[in-house]
Amino acid sequence: MARSSGGKSALSRAVRVLEAFDPSRNELTLTQIAARADLPMATAHGIVAELVELGLLERRGRELILGVRLWEVAVRAPGVFGLRETAFPYLEQVRDRLQQHAQLGILQGGEVLYVERLSAPESAINFTAVGGRIPWYATSSGLVLAASASPEELNRLLALPRPRFALEPQDSNADFKNRLAKVRQEGHAVTRGYIHQDSTAVAVPVLGPYGQAVASLAVVVPSGGFAVEPVLSVLAPAARAVSVKLREAFAG
Amino acid sequence: MARSSGGKSALSRAVRVLEAFDPSRNELTLTQIAARADLPMATAHGIVAELVELGLLERRGRELILGVRLWEVAVRAPGVFGLRETAFPYLEQVRDRLQQHAQLGILQGGEVLYVERLSAPESAINFTAVGGRIPWYATSSGLVLAASASPEELNRLLALPRPRFALEPQDSNADFKNRLAKVRQEGHAVTRGYIHQDSTAVAVPVLGPYGQAVASLAVVVPSGGFAVEPVLSVLAPAARAVSVKLREAFAG
Repeated sequence: MARSSGGKSALSRAVRVLEAFDPSRNELTLTQIAARADLPMATAHGIVAELVELGLLERRGRELILGVRLWEVAVRAPGVFGLRETAFPYLEQVRDRLQQHAQLGILQGGEVLYVERLSAPESAINFTAVGGRIPWYATSSGLVLAASASPEELNRLLALPRPRFALEPQDSNADFKNRLAKVRQEGHAVTRGYIHQDSTAVAVPVLGPYGQAVASLAVVVPSGGFAVEPVLSVLAPAARAVSVKLREAFAG
Repeated sequence: MARSSGGKSALSRAVRVLEAFDPSRNELTLTQIAARADLPMATAHGIVAELVELGLLERRGRELILGVRLWEVAVRAPGVFGLRETAFPYLEQVRDRLQQHAQLGILQGGEVLYVERLSAPESAINFTAVGGRIPWYATSSGLVLAASASPEELNRLLALPRPRFALEPQDSNADFKNRLAKVRQEGHAVTRGYIHQDSTAVAVPVLGPYGQAVASLAVVVPSGGFAVEPVLSVLAPAARAVSVKLREAFAG
């Protein structure tokens, strides 16, 4: 997450100011920005003034918010945008057919970053938000992406610490490898009661043009009366359809 | 658009590099970036290396793309995100009921910036994309937002040049003011054949917590057999519902 925090350049300090905003704190005063970015007030003041001038921050009364201009540039990031656009109709289909939350995640530095989420009213408790992150070992999406990772990438993931996130099992590396082997074999991951005891998540991989897993498609359903087959009968064909579209887009 | 192009600082040069990417060109070589950002190769090289290090750009073979990290920070911009999240279910409802493209736009520097768009298969020709812009005078969304603008903001818009964008009528300021007065009175704008001769767009305002128009909700439908009432009967209640939700979110 804080990959820029060691940086000394003007640019890295500006990124620290932008990263001071997080999903739960999207309006900050200058004092809060300086504290969260670990910058002297005068430095923070200068950077904020310049970011406002560039349209990357906007003033809202005494507080500052991330600017629409920043969103406008960033929405062109093809790593998210092409994927999201391609997957979107299938994500809607999954949500509509199952009447449950449907989400699309990618692996980023040991965490699953959710790039889209469609909510279903009256369905299971779910804490995921667009732009939110959950550690890879605590989510069905993370397990399915880890199971599809290269041996080097998997070793990198298993070398990271795994502090307890919610209610997930706390396995040794050997147990984890067995669990991931099962996920790889079955082609899907089920996590019952990991984030909330009453919720179960099911994830399947979305494959990129070279057959590598580039994202996961997942649903969150109530644990009571859960059966995997009806969920997979909707989820798996949707993920395969997204994979075909991605391959076509790449070839075209 | 190019509000940062006069800047001399490291930060403004970095923004010029990021702005070199546009919706139609999301993979660029270093040479293309230098040319599009109007920077010497050595300068562009240094900035690109730093942006890659910070995760704001990513390498894809010889080319560079905007990084997922940039998207992740920017998606927290409340000017877009709260609005998009709030409007989303209603946008889906409009698209499903009318079986036509539905889109959500905001006014940014004389242009409508589309922050969300849901496509309907088999419906009218439509060039809008998420993150795309169209000059205010060439779209139903722009007319409805201009009609709801303060007198100062409207004068600012009318003072801008209005080069022909597509097939829109080319009116004098006096004619424009009359047209906007009609839009204001009726509460919606209809643009028949502005962007494509076979397409008609209808837009209504979404009101913010103080009753100001903060966005527009619009549909694009085939011009043949078009009648405004059936479209408005779906569009207007949806925009009112979004306005109520925004007011509640602000009060809560």
